[in-house]
Amino acid sequence: MTELRTAPMSRRRLLTMIGTAAGSSAMYQAMTTLELAAESPYKGRIKLEGNPPKDTSILILGAGIAGLVAAYELLQVGYTVRILEYRDRAGGRCWTLRGGDSFTELGGIPQTCGFDEGLYFNPGPWRIPYHHSGILDYCKRLEVSLEPFIQVNYNAYLHAKDHFGGKPQRLRHVLADFNGSVAELLAKAASQGKLDQPVTKEDNEKLLHALKQWGALDDDYHYSTGKKSSERRGYKRDPGGGLNWEPVPSEPLPFAEILRSNVWFRLAVGQVYDVQSTIFQPVGGMDVIARAFAREIDKLMTGSSSSSITYNAKVTAIRQNPNHVTVTYQDAKKGGRSMQSTADWCLCTIPLSVLDQIDLVSVEKLKDAIDAVPYGASVKIGLQFRRRFWEQDEQIYGGITYTDLPINLIGYPNADFGSRGKGVLLGAYAFDSPYAYEFTALPPEDRLKKAREYGARLHRQYETEYENGVAVGWHRVPWALGCFARWTPEAREQHYENLCAIDGRITLAGEHVSHLPAWQEGAVLSSLDAISRLHQRVLGSKP
Amino acid sequence: MTELRTAPMSRRRLLTMIGTAAGSSAMYQAMTTLELAAESPYKGRIKLEGNPPKDTSILILGAGIAGLVAAYELLQVGYTVRILEYRDRAGGRCWTLRGGDSFTELGGIPQTCGFDEGLYFNPGPWRIPYHHSGILDYCKRLEVSLEPFIQVNYNAYLHAKDHFGGKPQRLRHVLADFNGSVAELLAKAASQGKLDQPVTKEDNEKLLHALKQWGALDDDYHYSTGKKSSERRGYKRDPGGGLNWEPVPSEPLPFAEILRSNVWFRLAVGQVYDVQSTIFQPVGGMDVIARAFAREIDKLMTGSSSSSITYNAKVTAIRQNPNHVTVTYQDAKKGGRSMQSTADWCLCTIPLSVLDQIDLVSVEKLKDAIDAVPYGASVKIGLQFRRRFWEQDEQIYGGITYTDLPINLIGYPNADFGSRGKGVLLGAYAFDSPYAYEFTALPPEDRLKKAREYGARLHRQYETEYENGVAVGWHRVPWALGCFARWTPEAREQHYENLCAIDGRITLAGEHVSHLPAWQEGAVLSSLDAISRLHQRVLGSKP
Repeated sequence: MTELRTAPMSRRRLLTMIGTAAGSSAMYQAMTTLELAAESPYKGRIKLEGNPPKDTSILILGAGIAGLVAAYELLQVGYTVRILEYRDRAGGRCWTLRGGDSFTELGGIPQTCGFDEGLYFNPGPWRIPYHHSGILDYCKRLEVSLEPFIQVNYNAYLHAKDHFGGKPQRLRHVLADFNGSVAELLAKAASQGKLDQPVTKEDNEKLLHALKQWGALDDDYHYSTGKKSSERRGYKRDPGGGLNWEPVPSEPLPFAEILRSNVWFRLAVGQVYDVQSTIFQPVGGMDVIARAFAREIDKLMTGSSSSSITYNAKVTAIRQNPNHVTVTYQDAKKGGRSMQSTADWCLCTIPLSVLDQIDLVSVEKLKDAIDAVPYGASVKIGLQFRRRFWEQDEQIYGGITYTDLPINLIGYPNADFGSRGKGVLLGAYAFDSPYAYEFTALPPEDRLKKAREYGARLHRQYETEYENGVAVGWHRVPWALGCFARWTPEAREQHYENLCAIDGRITLAGEHVSHLPAWQEGAVLSSLDAISRLHQRVLGSKP
Repeated sequence: MTELRTAPMSRRRLLTMIGTAAGSSAMYQAMTTLELAAESPYKGRIKLEGNPPKDTSILILGAGIAGLVAAYELLQVGYTVRILEYRDRAGGRCWTLRGGDSFTELGGIPQTCGFDEGLYFNPGPWRIPYHHSGILDYCKRLEVSLEPFIQVNYNAYLHAKDHFGGKPQRLRHVLADFNGSVAELLAKAASQGKLDQPVTKEDNEKLLHALKQWGALDDDYHYSTGKKSSERRGYKRDPGGGLNWEPVPSEPLPFAEILRSNVWFRLAVGQVYDVQSTIFQPVGGMDVIARAFAREIDKLMTGSSSSSITYNAKVTAIRQNPNHVTVTYQDAKKGGRSMQSTADWCLCTIPLSVLDQIDLVSVEKLKDAIDAVPYGASVKIGLQFRRRFWEQDEQIYGGITYTDLPINLIGYPNADFGSRGKGVLLGAYAFDSPYAYEFTALPPEDRLKKAREYGARLHRQYETEYENGVAVGWHRVPWALGCFARWTPEAREQHYENLCAIDGRITLAGEHVSHLPAWQEGAVLSSLDAISRLHQRVLGSKP
């Protein structure tokens, strides 16, 4: 048994053998016994074995999720930790805007968020998948409350500007009708013996049953107007109580129009592993995580006279010699005065887009790697409305409407359902598309105007209910200069390992040093991997 | 325009005409303009025009949702309302069990719920769809907080006891593989020109693109092991951060095994209009709604000397003459002493299963209607475990696992995600099936034992983590004698209108007098319809 566990190829061969000899049932039984389960790259709370020499110091550049994870863990095993952070707060792209928050993009136009109290908008990450075990475990340890993020709302819309007369279609209509039509087409081919798949007669029968059930087909295997299809897509008139409220079935959309409209492109979104349910958001905004980290790190630092976190520090140069790393930064609180910080080791979590512009002396292959990764564009716009018309007028509670207009989507708030108060919509989320660049190029006021114009084509209430908004163009955010590391397979092949490698006394961490770019989990796992290896290096280099 | 609005057939004809002449786009545009939207049977807050004569009294039998809605509305327009309720609390099937709650089924075996504080289980309804506008509006008016109910959890299981070696399969695996295989089969038929559907070449191309995207097919239109399919079903090894954590794709299940296992029967559950997202549960338990109603009704009754709610009242006879209704009941607080209550009118919300056994003199067609509707069976079992192993060991946060074992499903709690405390699972929900009768026939302890044995085949942790449980068999609940009115189309055709009709001074309400049996919305809408008609009758019969 032990031998099998350490030899995956033998195990595979064994299973194939069992499968061939005894049928699939025996094979699955064997799989259960051998515990061939999916492997997670998060192995539970990190164990940094062995203690570093007294007063070993690590300088962490950036207090985003990667930097916060590293500081939190390293402080607990006795490192002296100093953090330099560009902004006046922790979190990096784990960022939430609330009323009164101000920020200025490159180009110099300041924005102040005018939201009412209790309302917020996450310009960066906004959801946490159930399998992002690392960030979820930190939420648990830091006592960050989570609530469901509604990814799929069947009553939200799919919108194609040049189809269905420009009218947004309820997801439930498109989804039921697409599945029903696919089921009907395949059932017809199957019943006419046109599938050249090696299926037995019994399997073909099962396939027909399955298609009928799954696609809501009628007894003739047609997807038709009636009870069956309305039980999926909804009725023309819903069933009621008492007299005169029998349900009236609704009529399916023409399948050809669904095909031509390209709205099918969004039908499987909710099935994608990255966002499939159950998926979460922190109660009150994403930066609740960053605040909790900062709170705990402050506590840990209280016991250490030499550990510290310095905000408003813009790193300008990173230097190392065989014994130390020295970082030069401008202190925004002291008129941009140039300061220096020195430590034994350095964990740099600065985005490559920014690091690329910092005076860093390092090995050539690391420099090449830093240069090799462009950053994806993204624009996110938050719009405050005086009432929650999407709930009150259109019965849309949370979730996402997708459109082929440049705003890409409209996200509805996933909390305070049914509240009589105001609400903030995600009015645009142009992600990794030409529209993201177009939006970024506009001054914030024009972005808001565009988002309102486009949004009003889906929700006319925009015209009367809008109050204020904020618009974040990630390529203009001075401490990020882009949204996320946009690795190509070629760049990853050539540069990824070099980016991970420890260069002397410096190593990198962040979503850009992971196979999960743009996700906080990438930052967590990258950070844990980096500090594990750095810790080993520290122990190995004991004088 | 006005003419069109009042003549649906003309409107339909107009649309068809426009459709034929100008294509579907013009037709949809016209539909938008004419506002041909789905009709809801809930028309907003009820308006009972005109006031009843002073001291007009209505006796409401049953303080379930239908009775509570009626009392709440009728008190507000000046009726004297007296409620008789069998139990010691309001709510009826809108019922939540918490630690310390006791109840006794027919057969006499008492159960006391042993849950820890903060844990609960809803033996009756447990979810509220977004389109159940009536009950949702009452939640809003009564300030009942709602949170998402997780209907679909991609990481929960589908389980077929005789397939896949008896091992539960993650929903995400089955769903992705079913869709992928369906897409591949249809794409093959389409690309070989085997669909005898009248599709144009362009539409056929679109269909292929759509199938590829929706089904996660590879560039050869195959559903195969690799990045595309793993982005839906999940990986063998998830992508990580830093070194050595490239993702490893997972291998699809054999399609034939999926077909033979019948697990496809559950694939579309989350797409069903009745339960599709966004769907809610009240924070803290379903009976929070009943408690809020009772609280407001108490307030309204404070101002009325003659209105009252009497608990522990078992109705035994209902009589009427041209002027009054007289109801005889046993007062359980007074040793079952027989009491009487008289009023001008009566709204009876007692389930037909119970009403059938009450001495009621009424017109023959109403008696026939009462006799004509059998009640569906249901058993629900709540199990408390010492830790939330489904989250901690299996990353299942809320949602439902389905099995073909008699327990039918396991429901995971949709709140307190990530809590370190205990948790209560819905350990069985045998609904409207032979298993429901089998479970009901067992003494409660044996139901719990069975539920644990079956459940342990999906979650071995049952064996070590179980603490206590409660089991409700609805046919043995003395005040319900069944779960819900199980209308057949034939019974509805023959008896439904008779059941709705006012018989002299008595009328009925409840889920059984609706097109939404088993749903609280049916009780709400039935009640609103009944009191509207009763109010008209009252005004019409003014002396």
